[in-house]
Amino acid sequence: MQERNRILLIAAGNLLKKDDIKKVITLLEKLHPADAAEIVSSLPEEDQKRVFESWDIPHAADTLQEMDESEQLDIVELLSTPLVADIMEDMAADDAADLLGGLSKHDQERILAAMERKDALEAMRLMAHKADTAGGIMTPEFVALTKGMTAQDSIELLREKAPTAETIYYVFVVNKDNQLIGVISLRDLIIAKPTQRVEKIMNPNVIFVDVDTDQEEVASIMSRYDLLALPVVDQEHHLLGIVTIDDVVDVIEEEASEDIYLLGGVRREERLDSPAFESIRNRLPWMTFNLLTAFLAAAVVLSFQSTIGKLVVLAGFMPIVAGMGGNMGTQTLTVTTRGIALGQLEFREGMRVIARQIGIGVIIGAFTGILAGLVAYFYDQNPYLGLVLFLAMTINMGIAGLAGAGIPIVLRLLRQDPALGSGVIVTTFTDVFGFLTFLGLATLLMRFLI
Amino acid sequence: MQERNRILLIAAGNLLKKDDIKKVITLLEKLHPADAAEIVSSLPEEDQKRVFESWDIPHAADTLQEMDESEQLDIVELLSTPLVADIMEDMAADDAADLLGGLSKHDQERILAAMERKDALEAMRLMAHKADTAGGIMTPEFVALTKGMTAQDSIELLREKAPTAETIYYVFVVNKDNQLIGVISLRDLIIAKPTQRVEKIMNPNVIFVDVDTDQEEVASIMSRYDLLALPVVDQEHHLLGIVTIDDVVDVIEEEASEDIYLLGGVRREERLDSPAFESIRNRLPWMTFNLLTAFLAAAVVLSFQSTIGKLVVLAGFMPIVAGMGGNMGTQTLTVTTRGIALGQLEFREGMRVIARQIGIGVIIGAFTGILAGLVAYFYDQNPYLGLVLFLAMTINMGIAGLAGAGIPIVLRLLRQDPALGSGVIVTTFTDVFGFLTFLGLATLLMRFLI
Repeated sequence: MQERNRILLIAAGNLLKKDDIKKVITLLEKLHPADAAEIVSSLPEEDQKRVFESWDIPHAADTLQEMDESEQLDIVELLSTPLVADIMEDMAADDAADLLGGLSKHDQERILAAMERKDALEAMRLMAHKADTAGGIMTPEFVALTKGMTAQDSIELLREKAPTAETIYYVFVVNKDNQLIGVISLRDLIIAKPTQRVEKIMNPNVIFVDVDTDQEEVASIMSRYDLLALPVVDQEHHLLGIVTIDDVVDVIEEEASEDIYLLGGVRREERLDSPAFESIRNRLPWMTFNLLTAFLAAAVVLSFQSTIGKLVVLAGFMPIVAGMGGNMGTQTLTVTTRGIALGQLEFREGMRVIARQIGIGVIIGAFTGILAGLVAYFYDQNPYLGLVLFLAMTINMGIAGLAGAGIPIVLRLLRQDPALGSGVIVTTFTDVFGFLTFLGLATLLMRFLI
Repeated sequence: MQERNRILLIAAGNLLKKDDIKKVITLLEKLHPADAAEIVSSLPEEDQKRVFESWDIPHAADTLQEMDESEQLDIVELLSTPLVADIMEDMAADDAADLLGGLSKHDQERILAAMERKDALEAMRLMAHKADTAGGIMTPEFVALTKGMTAQDSIELLREKAPTAETIYYVFVVNKDNQLIGVISLRDLIIAKPTQRVEKIMNPNVIFVDVDTDQEEVASIMSRYDLLALPVVDQEHHLLGIVTIDDVVDVIEEEASEDIYLLGGVRREERLDSPAFESIRNRLPWMTFNLLTAFLAAAVVLSFQSTIGKLVVLAGFMPIVAGMGGNMGTQTLTVTTRGIALGQLEFREGMRVIARQIGIGVIIGAFTGILAGLVAYFYDQNPYLGLVLFLAMTINMGIAGLAGAGIPIVLRLLRQDPALGSGVIVTTFTDVFGFLTFLGLATLLMRFLI
């Protein structure tokens, strides 16, 4: 929270203690809704309730709209059904549908029943789309023009629609069956002669997406073509809604967080300010799974007990092989996962990318293996220990390249999220194979080592 | 590359073999500049040269603008100085300045000298700002209104400026000293009565940033307040330029990539399709550094050789302690780094966050430690081995919480990028302390263990 909002939060708290709810509301209304939302959601529950109950609906809707989903759900639980219904009618249709989608079936029905029929139907239509598709992030509050209208007519229509439309900077042209046939920017409308017809001004090569398109693809198209709004159509090319750039900014941040979290082995629900109990509940299943993978590596080492018993110094050098492999695997996984996310991977190039990463691993493994081997040689005065370390590192870092590139590419081919592999799977590979190659080679060459 | 562009690339290649450069240009002009850029930059160098030399300047500029910096620099090297100067004059001022900034001092001077004085001066002014600040990503091509103008006057002015301005959807109001005093959206101008004066329509609470503001902060403000354009001012509040949302989308993607790369220990220059030689050169210094940290962990183990010699089974269980600590540390690092990037960390809460992460580590460590301890007990029929494993895991996962949260938070306090710590530093901690606590405890309790 910024310093200014922190001060305003204290001021609001003091005013509420004196029951001066009117002044609190005056104070909040002077702020941008994003700031008002931050302050209100930091108040104690009973104060949140009082503020929302005394506020006019448009301000309440603007503020609720700016909150995180979990904060919104907390507020909705505090308020009466008719009040929630009134606020939802006033919210942007896509935001209202997202919020409803987060509620239980029972709460959804209760609130939808209290909403005006038109708004309730619109919300239900939007909720029918999967949350992470174009349909799930689009808004039906766009402006559509029909062929035959003039630039002047269009600007008149925009003037009328401006207060409720999500954006008026791009308007879309449809035929009489509501099929998308073109796009006009407000910039073009303003430059155009007032009597010019929209079909002369519009760009018929309009970029659009299907309602089922994944939100990541939507974001990548809007970012590629620098669009402020992207129309969404159904299979018969009917215009259903538009995705606006502000929602896409959220998608880009969300998808980046998701990749970062998956790579780090953390569930996306976890935040830095989550209560410790929640963090533990989120991480425990995954850490228990990690323990199983750790036992795999331990089992490999335990199967070489007699080798280590003969030459204890091996126990000291074996973590180098596993650790360097792990680092290499993590680097490769990072480059591959991000490369896939940013569209750097050509579909047919998968095998070549994997081969290249294996090659990179082997070369870096050989180079660092020589260094490590020399240190081992000087430490133990035995060139064969150095040789075993060098060979094991070279092989294991090749395996790191294979696992780090291969796992996300295979996941991608299976149409799963490439980041699902996560660091732990890759380091399990590099641990197991690191111990196996190093201790296995040492066992084979034992007569030279002792 | 999308399938369509791949086909067009082949078509363009065939036409160029027949020297039919005119048809290639007709084909490219039908495409969105982003697609034309992708196709042209995939052509052989001599064909790129031919296309740009036969093309009209506006199309050449639009297309060059859409390329990656490295692709732009390749093209600039192929073309004559006067042609490059002409193209740059036609590019968006911020894009031209970014491209010039990537050239050598000598090339900059050569091209600036050939550009029109006005454009050259503007580019030089923009280049004076650091690339990753508001000044580095802003454009001077905005529309400013002065007090006293009416809504009608403003729309007339916009009509005139529309072809060159980056955006006309937000216009800014300045006083006679060019100081920023308000903002009006085109939406408000269109709704307003034609005779109304701008000072009555404008919003005087305009959100702005200082020219030196970090680009990550700029992105976070624009995303928080859902802005399409953000004005940039100097210390005396003079309006210098605006940052537009399309540039911010790029910033968000860039910053997310940077965090992902830093956490994974990869330099940001590396791409999935980089040549193997470049990847090796990029990673080798870092992997050599990793080797040094791996020797730290090895040194700890080697100092306990006599302990391991007495009980070789310890060598099998020690990777579990280090590995689980490493996973815990990576999780904590991920949550902390991302939390800082998304503004979830309050400045004064650093100590509390670290304490909470240590607590989470200890609890998960104790839980998984009991499981691991039981397995060790059943494997070796010795309850003390289980106890040592349990204690070492509990302690080391507390250390993982400390390192995973503490390192990025301290880096942040030192005004460094919190992601700089990267996984390797954290896992070095957890390796060293994991081996130390496990083998140290085993040494202390040796008489119970054998």
